[in-house]
Amino acid sequence: MTTQAIPVELGARRYDVHVGANLLAGLGAFARQALDLGGDAPPRRAVVLADATVAPLYAQSVVASLLEADFATRQLTVPAGEPNKTLTTYASLMDGLLRLTPPIDRRTLIVALGGGVTSDIAGFVAATALRGLDWLVCPTTLLAAVDASVGGKTAVDHPAGKNLVGAFHQPRGVLIDVNTFATLPHPQFVDGLAECVKHAVIRDRALLEFMEDHTAAIIQRDEETLVELVARNVAIKAEIVAGDEREAGDRALLNFGHTIGHAVETLVGYERIGHGAAVSLGMTAACELARSRGLLEREACQRVTKLLATLGLPTKFDDLENVPRPTTTDIWNVMQRDKKTQAGQVRMILPVMLGAAAIFDDITPDNVARAVEVL
Amino acid sequence: MTTQAIPVELGARRYDVHVGANLLAGLGAFARQALDLGGDAPPRRAVVLADATVAPLYAQSVVASLLEADFATRQLTVPAGEPNKTLTTYASLMDGLLRLTPPIDRRTLIVALGGGVTSDIAGFVAATALRGLDWLVCPTTLLAAVDASVGGKTAVDHPAGKNLVGAFHQPRGVLIDVNTFATLPHPQFVDGLAECVKHAVIRDRALLEFMEDHTAAIIQRDEETLVELVARNVAIKAEIVAGDEREAGDRALLNFGHTIGHAVETLVGYERIGHGAAVSLGMTAACELARSRGLLEREACQRVTKLLATLGLPTKFDDLENVPRPTTTDIWNVMQRDKKTQAGQVRMILPVMLGAAAIFDDITPDNVARAVEVL
Repeated sequence: MTTQAIPVELGARRYDVHVGANLLAGLGAFARQALDLGGDAPPRRAVVLADATVAPLYAQSVVASLLEADFATRQLTVPAGEPNKTLTTYASLMDGLLRLTPPIDRRTLIVALGGGVTSDIAGFVAATALRGLDWLVCPTTLLAAVDASVGGKTAVDHPAGKNLVGAFHQPRGVLIDVNTFATLPHPQFVDGLAECVKHAVIRDRALLEFMEDHTAAIIQRDEETLVELVARNVAIKAEIVAGDEREAGDRALLNFGHTIGHAVETLVGYERIGHGAAVSLGMTAACELARSRGLLEREACQRVTKLLATLGLPTKFDDLENVPRPTTTDIWNVMQRDKKTQAGQVRMILPVMLGAAAIFDDITPDNVARAVEVL
Repeated sequence: MTTQAIPVELGARRYDVHVGANLLAGLGAFARQALDLGGDAPPRRAVVLADATVAPLYAQSVVASLLEADFATRQLTVPAGEPNKTLTTYASLMDGLLRLTPPIDRRTLIVALGGGVTSDIAGFVAATALRGLDWLVCPTTLLAAVDASVGGKTAVDHPAGKNLVGAFHQPRGVLIDVNTFATLPHPQFVDGLAECVKHAVIRDRALLEFMEDHTAAIIQRDEETLVELVARNVAIKAEIVAGDEREAGDRALLNFGHTIGHAVETLVGYERIGHGAAVSLGMTAACELARSRGLLEREACQRVTKLLATLGLPTKFDDLENVPRPTTTDIWNVMQRDKKTQAGQVRMILPVMLGAAAIFDDITPDNVARAVEVL
């Protein structure tokens, strides 16, 4: 099977995303290529920050591959799960990194191996250790592959909200091995599909059709279908990020489903609901909001909801177990605290047709209350 | 007296440094100008992060000025002193910032009011809160004015070394009010003079002569002399930073005196020696090293040492009270851990004549041992 290479065009900070099967064993060679290291380059150090869950599965092969490519390699473990994505974990990883002997230097490479939690936190460590180190991302979840791994957003959570502490720090390369998705628990796998639907709705009607046409192969995690699905999604994200690195314009479209989604996550607790499930609810509500304002046809709205449901994603709170329904007032209040909110005015991304969306700055509490009713 | 405006030319991130007397009361107007806010711009929030020592002296006037300029302003206090420049203080300030009500948003302005410790840590908060907020620097020490305030370096210390955790994050403007230097204890004032000598030695022989000619006025903190001294120094730093924002080339010259200086600080403890005193020792040793390698005339070397001593800076460990002399082996070992060290090879900046310096990558333990002997 062919490996697909998708460039993220960011001028001096451009990098490639490779998507394929059985790629992790070639990470060392990929790292040398991503860092432009010729055969006679002096040896560099690498530190793999690996998620505690995936480390036993892949870290050995990743470390071996880096060693073979002449990186003096060490490994640190990142505790798994969103509740650990804190400043405390960050400080502890930073401590581990800065106490390595021999000490790291500015040419040390950080490799993030794991899901979005790992790449968010490892990326923030890379952004701030010695004021910025090179880093690579090896996402091992579908969600991280199509979402967190491209774009250079790094962060940890704070009790006041998700991702409130962080930095923009582009990686030097991203290596996506779809074989790592084979071991994902079903709920985590479908979490990633939510972001795929998001990309389709805001940008690419053909992707929506591809997903509708390949639902079975996607759910069965057919390798070739996954490579195609991930590559298409990465290309969309790469194009948006390249056009708007610092999230001043189009990149905001990627927040489709996330304004209400983040509010739901904050209110029910990150440990009770997957990110993709929350975004799925957020997209359902946003589509309904768009419909109620006359922006989107009822049929288009239903088509999105149907695809989400067919892929196994929740479109109602009743689809979830043990998740209390937050009040619309609470949702509105949290939305006002969102870091994308400007001067207290809530901003939402709404689809205006399948494959296109726009930014709306005139969202009212009543809009939100009515949209959230469908959940 | 005229206020001097020095531009820091960083393309889209360019900003101005204003140097003058009695400027703090005009901070609000300066902030609107620095942020390009027209008369009809929507109101913004500001959070002043003020050093605990200077807050009682200036924070009230600063906050009043921001309020008058239509910034909804709050104040947080930064504990004073280098020992507090830690990830713990950072986390605590971030916590205070993110718990403000109403919550901050991406348009919130951070104002750092204090010395280098405050601007380093407040800048790191600004760099990483909501992935980056606008910030202004109001340095209240001579050291911060001519060193930390320009260039966008932000950081906190780690037990493994100084400034190991941080980010590059340029401020939107710098306001230097030389009146704030009037209240500085003598040792802190002369700390700043060390950086002035550094700039002169690496870049500007005329500045060296200016300092030699105005030693008395400088020591008496004559306002007009200070404005001239600071403006000349800021111009040098601004020019170097503009040419090399990420410290790949010429910016490294600013480390003159700092490689050995940092090692000394690490070994004797940040609480026992001022940064400028450590740099003064570092410059003395670096000049001696340059002399012993035949790069610098003995007379030039003596002229630097004499200026340092005349300004009240230490050029020997015996000039300091209660500071144990570290062993040369310890100094060398810490130098190898410096974050500017590449692949274990110690790098130093050495003067090649008065007003010019270069980077040397072939420093040996013996070079350092012999140079440190003069201290």
